[in-house]
Amino acid sequence: MPYVSARLWDDEDVRCLSLMCDEVHEHGALAGVELHHGGAHSPNRETRLAPIAPSALASDYEPAVVPRAMELADIRRIQEQWVAAARRARSAGFDIVYVYGAHSYLPMQFLSPFYNRRTDAYGGSFANRARFWLETLELVRGAVGHDCAIAARISLDALGPAGVEIEEGLAFVRAADHLVDLWDVNIGSIDEWSKDAGASRFFREGYQLEWTGRIREATAKPVVGVGRLTNPDRMAEIVSSGVWDVIGAARPSIADPFLPRKIEEGRLDEIRECTGANVCVAKAEDWRHLGCLQNATAGEEYRRGWHPERFARASNADRDVLVVGAGPAGMECAIVLGKRGLRRVHLVEAEAELGGCVRWISRLPGLGEWGRVVNWRTVQLGKLRNVEVITGLELSAADAREYGAEIVVVATGARWAADGTSPATHAPIAGADASLAHVLTPEQVMVEGKRPPGSRVVVYDCEGYFAAAGLAELLAGERFDVELVTPLEQISPFSDMTLEGPLLRQRLHDRGVSMRREAAIIRVEPGGVTGETEFGDLFELETDGIVLVTQRISNDAVYVGLAGDEEALRAEGVEAVYRVGDCVAPQLLADVIFDGHRLGREIDSPNPAIPLPALRERPTV
Amino acid sequence: MPYVSARLWDDEDVRCLSLMCDEVHEHGALAGVELHHGGAHSPNRETRLAPIAPSALASDYEPAVVPRAMELADIRRIQEQWVAAARRARSAGFDIVYVYGAHSYLPMQFLSPFYNRRTDAYGGSFANRARFWLETLELVRGAVGHDCAIAARISLDALGPAGVEIEEGLAFVRAADHLVDLWDVNIGSIDEWSKDAGASRFFREGYQLEWTGRIREATAKPVVGVGRLTNPDRMAEIVSSGVWDVIGAARPSIADPFLPRKIEEGRLDEIRECTGANVCVAKAEDWRHLGCLQNATAGEEYRRGWHPERFARASNADRDVLVVGAGPAGMECAIVLGKRGLRRVHLVEAEAELGGCVRWISRLPGLGEWGRVVNWRTVQLGKLRNVEVITGLELSAADAREYGAEIVVVATGARWAADGTSPATHAPIAGADASLAHVLTPEQVMVEGKRPPGSRVVVYDCEGYFAAAGLAELLAGERFDVELVTPLEQISPFSDMTLEGPLLRQRLHDRGVSMRREAAIIRVEPGGVTGETEFGDLFELETDGIVLVTQRISNDAVYVGLAGDEEALRAEGVEAVYRVGDCVAPQLLADVIFDGHRLGREIDSPNPAIPLPALRERPTV
Repeated sequence: MPYVSARLWDDEDVRCLSLMCDEVHEHGALAGVELHHGGAHSPNRETRLAPIAPSALASDYEPAVVPRAMELADIRRIQEQWVAAARRARSAGFDIVYVYGAHSYLPMQFLSPFYNRRTDAYGGSFANRARFWLETLELVRGAVGHDCAIAARISLDALGPAGVEIEEGLAFVRAADHLVDLWDVNIGSIDEWSKDAGASRFFREGYQLEWTGRIREATAKPVVGVGRLTNPDRMAEIVSSGVWDVIGAARPSIADPFLPRKIEEGRLDEIRECTGANVCVAKAEDWRHLGCLQNATAGEEYRRGWHPERFARASNADRDVLVVGAGPAGMECAIVLGKRGLRRVHLVEAEAELGGCVRWISRLPGLGEWGRVVNWRTVQLGKLRNVEVITGLELSAADAREYGAEIVVVATGARWAADGTSPATHAPIAGADASLAHVLTPEQVMVEGKRPPGSRVVVYDCEGYFAAAGLAELLAGERFDVELVTPLEQISPFSDMTLEGPLLRQRLHDRGVSMRREAAIIRVEPGGVTGETEFGDLFELETDGIVLVTQRISNDAVYVGLAGDEEALRAEGVEAVYRVGDCVAPQLLADVIFDGHRLGREIDSPNPAIPLPALRERPTV
Repeated sequence: MPYVSARLWDDEDVRCLSLMCDEVHEHGALAGVELHHGGAHSPNRETRLAPIAPSALASDYEPAVVPRAMELADIRRIQEQWVAAARRARSAGFDIVYVYGAHSYLPMQFLSPFYNRRTDAYGGSFANRARFWLETLELVRGAVGHDCAIAARISLDALGPAGVEIEEGLAFVRAADHLVDLWDVNIGSIDEWSKDAGASRFFREGYQLEWTGRIREATAKPVVGVGRLTNPDRMAEIVSSGVWDVIGAARPSIADPFLPRKIEEGRLDEIRECTGANVCVAKAEDWRHLGCLQNATAGEEYRRGWHPERFARASNADRDVLVVGAGPAGMECAIVLGKRGLRRVHLVEAEAELGGCVRWISRLPGLGEWGRVVNWRTVQLGKLRNVEVITGLELSAADAREYGAEIVVVATGARWAADGTSPATHAPIAGADASLAHVLTPEQVMVEGKRPPGSRVVVYDCEGYFAAAGLAELLAGERFDVELVTPLEQISPFSDMTLEGPLLRQRLHDRGVSMRREAAIIRVEPGGVTGETEFGDLFELETDGIVLVTQRISNDAVYVGLAGDEEALRAEGVEAVYRVGDCVAPQLLADVIFDGHRLGREIDSPNPAIPLPALRERPTV
């Protein structure tokens, strides 16, 4: 819940999933299914039943969820259900069936003394704790093991209490090796998912090898491993070395579903490398449609009919297009327009370099790999012969109108408010004016090099994502005495959805950044600010300066200047003016890029300013 | 998103919703539809598009959502969509069509200077700010107003910046009165929903009348109002007085869908009065299936086939049942078994009074109305001639086995851990032992009257709902110096889902309770405790005592004693032993009651211990 999820609970589910398996096979691939039981981590939002687990110990992950301890009959029932699900999986056409344990799910709960306090044959010694998983594997093997491969996913080291440490992880691999055709290995637990699906801010490519690379001590069977692998050379090196046989790459495949084919065909410069920003995870955690910083078509293949690599020639391809602004949205739009065969596409950027805001964002501590958003697009633009990139040329509305293009796309981005205007107040903060020495915007800090006139600085965050936390870390690194203040309930709450939150706050703390939440700044003066707590109590902070990370404002002057004078447009032969990205409204980078892509895909639709409807799910009886 | 929601976007939606309207009409009722546009509060998780609003001012409700300002063409387009949706609503069979503005949605965003900074004909003066809504009402009236009634919902006073104050609210009612057939009035805004769907902890029955009662100054049209109305006499008084014509009662109707009929037929003692615990809201906010403290069948009518008032005679109705424990689950189960005609149902309670944990929970500050859970069930039990209630009789497993019933249902509840065992640690806290004077459990405080030996007390909350916050408020009211400490990210986070959080924290603050979050207690000693922050830093608190609200433990001794000896059961003629409620696993009160109800409904199923499958939604192509 609340997603309507795919299940294998009865024959009707088999029928539905067999349609998917058929499609998978049509393309020469194998279909696998990760059959899992969440045990203690099952809030059962839909059934409203009490969860079951090895022992009646509350979930360390789901709030206020306490399971009942499984009786022997429960163990048998769940094992029978696993077998029944495996049989249904086989009927549906799946080739690989998992008895999935990783993320502290039920089999690992039996294996781990943190969850398992049983005193019967399923608890206590390692052999007893391993019994549930081994029996289940054996039953599934017996039921479908000649027709399906049997896989097991195990977290070899939980890096915390909620699982096992590496030696017991390897011991289980040895004990179950005769029952398993494919080992799927990772690290961390359900509560420490941030260490498995690690963000690039904190984890280097292949970082899980330190633990999961040791699996060869315990098995000669095929192994799949994961851990931020995006570089083909590094992947090949790992496979050649014999440590793993398969590179698991969920996030890199969202960024580029054609990753394997591009490697196979040697088109390495066309690979959209995953940035590790974890916006895909955030989209899921926040119940949004899938999204990706690198791949605007992710999740749009079916509902919008967008193939990631195929672009139909536009019916108005005889037109010339001017794209004003080469930030992420403008670059993406120009690439799509180029691929759709528009006669001439001019991408004009006021700055000397491409990338817009991503240029400075990727200079925030730990966000270097976000620069791949610019790098990949820069390379692709260079390959398109109908696209010309012009830098160092700032265009006014009049310039754009007179440029000579029939279609103008404005992609001029956004800037941070210079007066403290914020979502909660819709008004400036008294005394906040970034033309003063002690008041700073993120761009002033990152692009202009402005710094507070003294050693103390308050970073004020009304947004809750990477900008304020990144600036605080950056300024702390420059030996400023930093206090991060936010009216939000948590420091950088959106970073919790990208799995960066706890690690980020720990890092800020370790770097000496003070943090104060549910506190609004209501007045800024030289030497100090006045704030108000959630309870309406006032407080004062002495500081030499304040960085305002309150709200972004669209740079819409060029668009408004163009669209506001239809007669002038007609006089210059401009048929249409559109805008994309942050200059429409400030959004997540992934959605800004999507916006640019969307316009390119629909540049020849009846009204490109209004997106075409997408397929959607709806209730039916 | 993420729910697959009902929409009126195309003909297929019309077809789906017409099935509902037909059913509604079949029962002699009118079908209404609240057509709404969220404006700035539209994160557009599904479409990924930038939202639109009167001005480009960020949502004060949805994090980091900034809309673009609507152009004139957008205004026309949205109005056309409203008309098209109204036409579809008419085609589907709806009788009442809303142009819905309340909760700071788009029409109120135009009306409110907090959202509307336009300088064209749609912003500035009251007449200009009202224009969008008035025009839309007029267009909808013109399109379907002869076939459908036109309703408007307005928050007459936002009680904050995000709307209008009462005088402008009434002014709008006057201005639009000729276009509207039904006024639907409330208070608050989207960010202040807690003041509209007010919890009983903070709001008295009919509290909104202070504001919305004034609507008669502006209109003679029919009016529907809301605000925790559960008492038929109070409802009748309001309608008779002419203030409102219709009592809006969403929550009371979840608690009792037959509320109007029971009033009509004078069966007032059978009405399940809403407790105002807002668990229905919490279930929605937490993406759970609907639930209700009073009505276990809420949301189960279709998927489980449970009619709230109809109970089929059980096929094993010739059996005698013993229910051990008259807490909420045991009482509910006994009522259902009684209604299903079981020969003799004995409900045996160890204490002198019925209600189990609800007896002391309803004595926490502000939770008195939760006692309705016990009151309603006590009355119903008294009406069932086949149910006998016996109090003051504690039964051991042997007593229950030898009681003489063929079926035994154990409902012995749960207790709070006396040693600090918590979800995050699965282990006791060093030094925590509630047999000591300075260590207390909630039951010791509430039932036994134990108090800390001194004036200072720490309440330690690892659960995050009402118990710890309630105890802190209670002890502060007794002049203890209280510090509420929690390892969770927020104080009482689940109370945010019941819309109690901000008001609760403000009240605790006002009563002098200190609050410390993301802090774990790791050692308890006489005179003080040692804690650890989220960053691993240790701290010491001087205190005379600590109340441990860490985790509940099921009282399963009677069940285990019974179920563990099948031979003895057979010898005594006991055919089956079941358990329900907190003694299975501690859950939300609503789910505990559901659990008791469920067993009663399925007492004659093939295996009553395992719930029958419910209808579910599934993906289809």
